[in-house]
Amino acid sequence: MDFIPGQLMAAEIAEQPRVLHRLLTDGAESILEVGRQLALRKPRFVLFAARGTSDHAALFGKYLTEIEVGLPAGLISPSSSTVYGARADLRECLFVAVSQSGGSPDLVDSLSVARRCGATTVAVTNNVASDLADAAAFTVDVCAGVERAVAATKSYTAQLLALFLLLSSLRVSGINALERAAPLAEAAQETLDSGADIAAVAARLRFATRLITTARGYSYPSAREGALKLMETSYLSALAFSGADLLHGPLAMIDADQPVIAIVSPGRGGDAMLPVLRALQERKADLTVVGAAPARVHDGEGQLQVATTGVAEELLPILEILPLQQLALRLALDRGGDPDSPRGLSKVTETW
Amino acid sequence: MDFIPGQLMAAEIAEQPRVLHRLLTDGAESILEVGRQLALRKPRFVLFAARGTSDHAALFGKYLTEIEVGLPAGLISPSSSTVYGARADLRECLFVAVSQSGGSPDLVDSLSVARRCGATTVAVTNNVASDLADAAAFTVDVCAGVERAVAATKSYTAQLLALFLLLSSLRVSGINALERAAPLAEAAQETLDSGADIAAVAARLRFATRLITTARGYSYPSAREGALKLMETSYLSALAFSGADLLHGPLAMIDADQPVIAIVSPGRGGDAMLPVLRALQERKADLTVVGAAPARVHDGEGQLQVATTGVAEELLPILEILPLQQLALRLALDRGGDPDSPRGLSKVTETW
Repeated sequence: MDFIPGQLMAAEIAEQPRVLHRLLTDGAESILEVGRQLALRKPRFVLFAARGTSDHAALFGKYLTEIEVGLPAGLISPSSSTVYGARADLRECLFVAVSQSGGSPDLVDSLSVARRCGATTVAVTNNVASDLADAAAFTVDVCAGVERAVAATKSYTAQLLALFLLLSSLRVSGINALERAAPLAEAAQETLDSGADIAAVAARLRFATRLITTARGYSYPSAREGALKLMETSYLSALAFSGADLLHGPLAMIDADQPVIAIVSPGRGGDAMLPVLRALQERKADLTVVGAAPARVHDGEGQLQVATTGVAEELLPILEILPLQQLALRLALDRGGDPDSPRGLSKVTETW
Repeated sequence: MDFIPGQLMAAEIAEQPRVLHRLLTDGAESILEVGRQLALRKPRFVLFAARGTSDHAALFGKYLTEIEVGLPAGLISPSSSTVYGARADLRECLFVAVSQSGGSPDLVDSLSVARRCGATTVAVTNNVASDLADAAAFTVDVCAGVERAVAATKSYTAQLLALFLLLSSLRVSGINALERAAPLAEAAQETLDSGADIAAVAARLRFATRLITTARGYSYPSAREGALKLMETSYLSALAFSGADLLHGPLAMIDADQPVIAIVSPGRGGDAMLPVLRALQERKADLTVVGAAPARVHDGEGQLQVATTGVAEELLPILEILPLQQLALRLALDRGGDPDSPRGLSKVTETW
């Protein structure tokens, strides 16, 4: 194999429409069946455990649980059990661990402890032969295929879709999850193909050392994951804020030399970003907007298109992240880096 | 009144030992009584709601709940109910909203919705005459006195102590919370008085534009809050990572030009930071350590002392944040700013 910088990441970004299609056609039925079995146990609370990119998928799962499922949810701190030996009463809890590799010892331990404490445990993973899958009562295969680039891309969007299918099956009112998800693969392809502005935005950020990403609601995990991708591949100091939290303090950092990427998709989360966009414009932030074209953006500022037609708001995070992945790849290459081998990282990170 | 830059923040930082003492002597009994009443309701799950600095106090509350109380816990996303209209089943949930001012409309709405959804609601606030306190079934007064500086300091440490007292009362095994907290006021004074190295660390960071803070376990909220203080007052791009998450991706950003502040207190969280410190040193990060003196730090790197003798690990966050507050103040002054009026901020931020 020739070593062309970024070719693994580029190939896996491009593969995502096929991964989503495969998950919907081959993988979905078994995920929905796991969901139905979980629903029979009538969970009262849902806990998510994850690290890194998977933590952003877990955060998406938390929003889905609160909004769509109607149950309280939390993201656990793995250290509570692995470092402090916490043993909580987890009867009637659903414990969902999300991990591409299923290999991080602290996640395996957290899940095993949760199972002994009474939780119903599920591993959402790209490796059904992993220790995490072994330890869990139920396993959801995200079907992304082997992921070789260090910066996770296709496993992330596959995790989002798998969590959507799983959690939708917990709902009392059973709106057809598969039907809602059907337009995704095509919309993902359209979004990736429309990446003409990626080069222009990457050029503008060529010498940026810091950046802020912001969004609200369902799109907030996209802001977090986009920031992580830029940190991993381009070594930018990229801070992600919920639009509301940005107004509580960090707004002071914003000036004309502060690039901001705001994710503003159609829907309630995007609408709630309007006062945030106004505050950013008042402070003359350098603004790039990810989303369908809002009339409210200044001429000359960057915009990264997302194909949103016919896709429900709760599924847009699967599309919004695509131009941010493309941007992270392009920026890393523009800076002479190789996003397939970021300094200091390996594919499986073992933490305790 | 003369306007000396930073005088409000300096006065409120200095006031903290007295605030802690007052909370322990005058305020504690009513907090413990609220805790006993909450225990009678036998909550199964604890949710926290907060924004900005108070969100870091809420995160501390989440660790306490998981580790000390033995219940699952989560930080809610206010937008789930205020933007998306989510109505979750919150019977047997304890819902704790943390807010200095008690005035942010989205928090008041989130708490009101939670109460209608069956949760037992508590407002932990510095303003018992606030809308938030009115809306809650129970109120905890953090007794910090009027806070005038925009950057919250004394209300934060008072929130931490109030949450410790409240949540400790939920435990089955009733270790004496007041007894454990007794050394705090004196240790806080000692920590503030030992601030000799603040000037040296501030000088070293004079021209830094970005910074990373990191910690594990109970100290992780201190890393988050320290980063926010530096962002609010000195406009640094300050990223906070749990030590474990730092190894999952953002480590790629670390080089000799990347200042890192690691909080390494005695105890299990500090011990779990050792592999993180090694990874940072391998990558030649410019390292400042907050905590009791660990022999493991290179000569010449910065160190900010914390008086930890006789204080239990779960209470150290009340002390660790003090040198970070002092650093944020000093750095803002060194840079010619006025931390009492950061650009773009006001004391009460209203978000919906």
